[in-house]
Amino acid sequence: MQWYVVASVLTILTSSQGILTTLSQSNGGYKYDYSTVPFLAEVFKLIVSSMLLWRECQRSPSPKMTTDWRSVRLYPIPSIIYLVHNNVQFATLTYVDTSTYQIMGNLKIVTTGILFRLFLKRKLSTLQWMAIVLLAIGTTTSQVKGCGQASCDSVFSSPIQGYVLGILSACLSALAGVYTEFLMKKNNDSLYWQNIQLYTFGAIFNLAKLVLDDFRSGFEKGAWWQRLFNGYSITTWMVVLNLGSTGLLVSWLMKYADNIVKVYSTSMAMLLTMLLSVFLFNFKPTLQLFLGIFVCIMSLHMYFAPPRVLVDLPLTAKAAPESIVEASVDRRTTS
Amino acid sequence: MQWYVVASVLTILTSSQGILTTLSQSNGGYKYDYSTVPFLAEVFKLIVSSMLLWRECQRSPSPKMTTDWRSVRLYPIPSIIYLVHNNVQFATLTYVDTSTYQIMGNLKIVTTGILFRLFLKRKLSTLQWMAIVLLAIGTTTSQVKGCGQASCDSVFSSPIQGYVLGILSACLSALAGVYTEFLMKKNNDSLYWQNIQLYTFGAIFNLAKLVLDDFRSGFEKGAWWQRLFNGYSITTWMVVLNLGSTGLLVSWLMKYADNIVKVYSTSMAMLLTMLLSVFLFNFKPTLQLFLGIFVCIMSLHMYFAPPRVLVDLPLTAKAAPESIVEASVDRRTTS
Repeated sequence: MQWYVVASVLTILTSSQGILTTLSQSNGGYKYDYSTVPFLAEVFKLIVSSMLLWRECQRSPSPKMTTDWRSVRLYPIPSIIYLVHNNVQFATLTYVDTSTYQIMGNLKIVTTGILFRLFLKRKLSTLQWMAIVLLAIGTTTSQVKGCGQASCDSVFSSPIQGYVLGILSACLSALAGVYTEFLMKKNNDSLYWQNIQLYTFGAIFNLAKLVLDDFRSGFEKGAWWQRLFNGYSITTWMVVLNLGSTGLLVSWLMKYADNIVKVYSTSMAMLLTMLLSVFLFNFKPTLQLFLGIFVCIMSLHMYFAPPRVLVDLPLTAKAAPESIVEASVDRRTTS
Repeated sequence: MQWYVVASVLTILTSSQGILTTLSQSNGGYKYDYSTVPFLAEVFKLIVSSMLLWRECQRSPSPKMTTDWRSVRLYPIPSIIYLVHNNVQFATLTYVDTSTYQIMGNLKIVTTGILFRLFLKRKLSTLQWMAIVLLAIGTTTSQVKGCGQASCDSVFSSPIQGYVLGILSACLSALAGVYTEFLMKKNNDSLYWQNIQLYTFGAIFNLAKLVLDDFRSGFEKGAWWQRLFNGYSITTWMVVLNLGSTGLLVSWLMKYADNIVKVYSTSMAMLLTMLLSVFLFNFKPTLQLFLGIFVCIMSLHMYFAPPRVLVDLPLTAKAAPESIVEASVDRRTTS
């Protein structure tokens, strides 16, 4: 499968995630306990990955699986980073409003690029760096409040702690992604075996959160298993399946593509959701939404188009045939 | 002189033009007749160009001057295009508000690129086209009204005639620029001789406008020469000198650089004015101003940086030494 097909499907599913979540609400609130959704999604991913691994085991050669404890112990780390991230996010929101938090969230595009370079030692061209910064600018532009909208964003007037925590949050989010990529690529273990380890810890951490919430609320709403499927509609199940499927696709991308592809995919999904909301929920489109979309599309082209396509001037046309010869020579040597 | 030095000076002067004009107002209005300013600026440019041509004539070889009527008759055309443009602008403003007109004005960046390609047959790389579109997006982004600002922009709700006239206006503005470049480059006449022809017609057209306005108003405020220097302060004179100087620099760029350089220069000036207004006039900066500035700086780098700098990945480092050898061979051959 080609990475861009997976990335496109991820974009569509991530985009429908926002819309499905909105549709699953009734009267602006959830009839079901939203915190059960990520847990069920982890269980779904675990079941699917187990089935796929089982099928893989029937074939020969049997899939490579490292069961050494020194390898397995690396798999809860993404869950731990997300746990810390969630707490930082919570702390950030005591200093800044949600709109400012959302704006600052785009920083994770840039921090992902930086950690991608620092930890995974992946080199990017100047143009690709510019594309990454433009993607962050484009998504931010699309989120700028219109002059008719009620709440004015206080992007410049939050306390300094809010910005520091926002940057920390962006770094943690990027770290989780980059670490997962490192994990998936560090050996040629079966993707499904890696997934099983990842999602087992994911399910455990989510379960622990549900139990902890029960204790915190003094079992006010009953134990977690009592409210697990309470108020679930078809749409709620679709939210669970959708969240699970996007998780599986992200895993695939981490192994066979990279974090930057994932960042583009989710950013484009955010814009697609905003665009679809204009039609589905009668949202008033702003000029900045379209400007942001244009900037992101340019950024996408800048990052992924072959450099030759981007900078080839008719002036350098003379040099082109030579390079084609070179390329074909290369191919002959490698084949 | 290097083109980027001239372009930088043009940026600074164009930017101070907006600030000087604001400073020359008293109690939000003009004490002097603003329509006399462009006329005096044309006269100033005419005097400076005549002096420079005279100095050039003292030297040998004497400057090349085509005095054939078939050449001279081409010089009033820019003034005629500007005259039509001003009327289209006036018509547009009966359909759209000034804020929408300002937003649509950024279209001239793109139309300049298109006419530059079509009429002057100048080839641009994909990356340069993207840079031009990004420049237009960046300037537009910076102008998006903040949510606290009084008037809401009605960019999507103007009558169709407004958009058509806005596009026409952008095309005429681009045409005037591209035509002037064609005029300045069509032969190797002295720049000052070309300027004299251009500004003579410019002064005549501006004078005709002053006289026409007198007749229109029924000489209510007296004849134009009676109100020529009325209410002029030091700042007003600075506005005149500044407008004249920017005109001279634009002429230079049209002959020795091109329209795209001019477009970058004036766009950057617009952003600089907005940024300076934050400090000088206590304007509240918006997030979109900074986002727009970032996009324009990226665009500048994309357009003017050598392609090698932009797309050179460490992967292709092997090829670099060869190219350096090639370049040095080229230099040896040409020297």
